[in-house]
Amino acid sequence: MTNKIRIGLVGYGNIGKGVELALEEFPDMEGIAVFTRRNPEDLDSKLKAISLDHILDYQEDLDVLILCGGSATDLPGQGPALAKHFSTIDSYDNHNQIPEYFETMDQSAKAGKNISIISVGWDPGLFSLNRAVFESILPAGETYTFWGKGLSQGHSDAIRRIDGVKFGVQYTIPVETALEEVRSGSNPTLSTREKHKRVCYVVAEAGSDQNLIEETIKTMPDYFEPYDTTVHFIDEKTFKEEHQKMPHGGFVIRTATSATGNKQKAEFQLELESNAEFTSSILVAYARAAYKFKKDGKSGALSVLDVPPAYLSPKSAAQLRKELL
Amino acid sequence: MTNKIRIGLVGYGNIGKGVELALEEFPDMEGIAVFTRRNPEDLDSKLKAISLDHILDYQEDLDVLILCGGSATDLPGQGPALAKHFSTIDSYDNHNQIPEYFETMDQSAKAGKNISIISVGWDPGLFSLNRAVFESILPAGETYTFWGKGLSQGHSDAIRRIDGVKFGVQYTIPVETALEEVRSGSNPTLSTREKHKRVCYVVAEAGSDQNLIEETIKTMPDYFEPYDTTVHFIDEKTFKEEHQKMPHGGFVIRTATSATGNKQKAEFQLELESNAEFTSSILVAYARAAYKFKKDGKSGALSVLDVPPAYLSPKSAAQLRKELL
Repeated sequence: MTNKIRIGLVGYGNIGKGVELALEEFPDMEGIAVFTRRNPEDLDSKLKAISLDHILDYQEDLDVLILCGGSATDLPGQGPALAKHFSTIDSYDNHNQIPEYFETMDQSAKAGKNISIISVGWDPGLFSLNRAVFESILPAGETYTFWGKGLSQGHSDAIRRIDGVKFGVQYTIPVETALEEVRSGSNPTLSTREKHKRVCYVVAEAGSDQNLIEETIKTMPDYFEPYDTTVHFIDEKTFKEEHQKMPHGGFVIRTATSATGNKQKAEFQLELESNAEFTSSILVAYARAAYKFKKDGKSGALSVLDVPPAYLSPKSAAQLRKELL
Repeated sequence: MTNKIRIGLVGYGNIGKGVELALEEFPDMEGIAVFTRRNPEDLDSKLKAISLDHILDYQEDLDVLILCGGSATDLPGQGPALAKHFSTIDSYDNHNQIPEYFETMDQSAKAGKNISIISVGWDPGLFSLNRAVFESILPAGETYTFWGKGLSQGHSDAIRRIDGVKFGVQYTIPVETALEEVRSGSNPTLSTREKHKRVCYVVAEAGSDQNLIEETIKTMPDYFEPYDTTVHFIDEKTFKEEHQKMPHGGFVIRTATSATGNKQKAEFQLELESNAEFTSSILVAYARAAYKFKKDGKSGALSVLDVPPAYLSPKSAAQLRKELL
């Protein structure tokens, strides 16, 4: 019998693996099992691997499920089905569909008397939290979000589909002059394209036409054509040494004016060597919050905007007041 | 009859004046009256000024009181006395006494079925919030707080008490090399003294000994002696043009390591032309949260760590999810 918060993982991709690792840094929490649609024997996890078909047998053994699947195909079905039986955390990030997903999750979670915290991560997630706090405390201003420097999986995939490309990655990078303009408090109107540039590192196949590859990248509609795009050709050794990580980060900046005309600026920054590991760590901290809400007798869906900061911490409210206020 | 959140101010110093101004930027909230221990006729406020002796006559007219007094002498008495009759917000910032003040406020607020959110501002306050979130989501790391560039009222007062000083201000400034060392992720051990330097601007009386003034400042125990202190003598015109504002700001930085050794960094920054106006604006936003907690039927003392971000906003939960997630 454990006093730890007992966590089940659903799915074992980048995020599932990240959650398993992150749990090592949360001593009050314990990974119990990974549930998978694959053959459980194929999973290289230290946790017990169990077929997702049998998950309902584990209701008494788990406090919170962390849903590690993707927003496109996994979560829309899995989320509402599992929220009827377990408290859940997910990183649903299909922005336009969030209100609808929330309603579905809310109904399921309430039916099962569970808590489901949706869209947890850093954007949506911590960035949303900062946008909400910033606009609430500084009403007369503008909020800006920049992403990067970070590896974009979708854009890297697009490069790799081009003929003659052996390996390729794309980094989204904030435009420094746009950042400075925002920080100056001049409240510029900036599109996503004006705030970010795209830098690509490509290993070409022997004998391929590098000019053609570069041209194909730079003229790719939506992905690269509207952006200031740079393409660097590098050798395979450099690629493997320098471009295997998944860094990311970004900025939320609000500049505002007080009623007497004073300029006030609040800024939140992330700089991450591993995007997936950071998202995973956030998911685990919010699983702790879900556990506390459930103990309070609450049920239904929540977002990060509904979670008091103290609920993320293993410390008591009194300890937090003493140490952090 | 108003549908706005009705705010009473207690005290009319820098913060009280700031709250009156900040309320202009919160269209869902309304300042009703200022309560003062002075002669109400002496107050230069657009709001109705009323003797603090009569505040209990206004229980039906106010939703939340913002206590604008100081932590040394005003709040320890006023807070618990008023929390029995009104929901309150205060900026109590005597760090060592916060646990005891919280308990006293909690008893009073519960007795009166009110909500009291204590120690609201930016430190304690928003900085505490970020420290709590950062250490919860990145457990294996270190958190650093830097203050400045900012005007320190206490240090400026100390300068002005020196013989021969006509005007004087002191700015606390983060040491750039210390900031960079922290951001590098090297987890240095740094005292407050090592993280900050002190820069003073002084207007000397005609005929006074500037060398003696500079020496007196730099050797003042606790205030300046332990710090890298610079003293600039300027003329009165420059002083009045460039040193009348109360800028402040600072940084909360957490550097951490994931279970696989990746470096992760989160940072929160403030840069404020008016410290008092920013603190006032935060107090007003948390008054909105106190109003919501009270409507929920809750009572007792809370800190910023207990407040969900959504409670600070005038927007509905659904609108926030749609716009900010």
